[in-house]
Amino acid sequence: MKLYMSPGSGNAYKVRLLLEMLKVPYEKYNLDTKNKEHKQAPFLAINPRGQMPALEDDGRKFWDSTACLVYVARKHGEGKWLPTDAAGEAEIQQWLALSNNECHYGLQWARNVKLNMKQGSLDEYQGYGTKGLEILEARLKGNDWLALGRPTIADRECYPYVAVSPEGGFDLAKYPAVQAWMKRIEALPGWIKKQ
Amino acid sequence: MKLYMSPGSGNAYKVRLLLEMLKVPYEKYNLDTKNKEHKQAPFLAINPRGQMPALEDDGRKFWDSTACLVYVARKHGEGKWLPTDAAGEAEIQQWLALSNNECHYGLQWARNVKLNMKQGSLDEYQGYGTKGLEILEARLKGNDWLALGRPTIADRECYPYVAVSPEGGFDLAKYPAVQAWMKRIEALPGWIKKQ
Repeated sequence: MKLYMSPGSGNAYKVRLLLEMLKVPYEKYNLDTKNKEHKQAPFLAINPRGQMPALEDDGRKFWDSTACLVYVARKHGEGKWLPTDAAGEAEIQQWLALSNNECHYGLQWARNVKLNMKQGSLDEYQGYGTKGLEILEARLKGNDWLALGRPTIADRECYPYVAVSPEGGFDLAKYPAVQAWMKRIEALPGWIKKQ
Repeated sequence: MKLYMSPGSGNAYKVRLLLEMLKVPYEKYNLDTKNKEHKQAPFLAINPRGQMPALEDDGRKFWDSTACLVYVARKHGEGKWLPTDAAGEAEIQQWLALSNNECHYGLQWARNVKLNMKQGSLDEYQGYGTKGLEILEARLKGNDWLALGRPTIADRECYPYVAVSPEGGFDLAKYPAVQAWMKRIEALPGWIKKQ
């Protein structure tokens, strides 16, 4: 399995975390983002979005971090990280959606504005991100994990952008259940730091 | 099965389309959006986001349109609309991601700005939506369907916001393969108009 990534990509980090935790051997391909390798034809043929991560395995290629997580979890996770029953999978999909919406377009975009990587309305992004943190806090007040009472790709998907959200101006001290959940994730076997 | 929706919600329409196509009996619950019923405590207990759709079945409740689609497809679709093999599910998940990113935050947000339902940068949203349409066009030039060579929830998820994208200032005449794909979807048994 070959992972197209960059050390700084939070979306690639989601996939690396799962690969490490499942002890799946994989080759890292670090894209030369400074020279915009991810925007050039050879990589665009793998991922038309021109973003990280992408995954290559058995001659198949996949783009989008959620799709990569689903692939790895389904192939190597024995159903533990992503079940196939309707209710279990839908429960997990809810949190993948929260990650792809409130986390990405709230937490991450606020951070990108603060770090001068993007223009846009900081107020709007912080408001949307705050809504995401409030929903996570409410869920985690009575639950150790986001779905199914155990670690799943739901946690893996939401964690990275929550972890760096203070750089977007979010105060995690207001969300004690989220903080405790982050510590539980960081204590899982195979957990690695982003860089 | 009970679907919390409004007739105008494109996200609820995605789920209605699949329920109708699979001939799954369901009860419609039309939220009183004029009086903000979807932002009040009883509905927030079902969906903490305060958005449509949500689904209730066998005492379980699910929010988020993708999660609802996954639930219905997994429970009633016999694997046709959402397979369980790693490569097949990941292929579909790529297009669910495109819908949740380029379609939602590009096509839909541009439309919301044009219809005075939202503030923000029309240029940014139109650029992002155009990228989504270009990726769809490239994929559909050589394929009848987005994934697996057959209709799946990938098509169901992307279709609604593409269909109304002209209201966001997008010219679908530039995307003939997308237009042909829309006609194929509209010819599927059980297809219904949004309203």
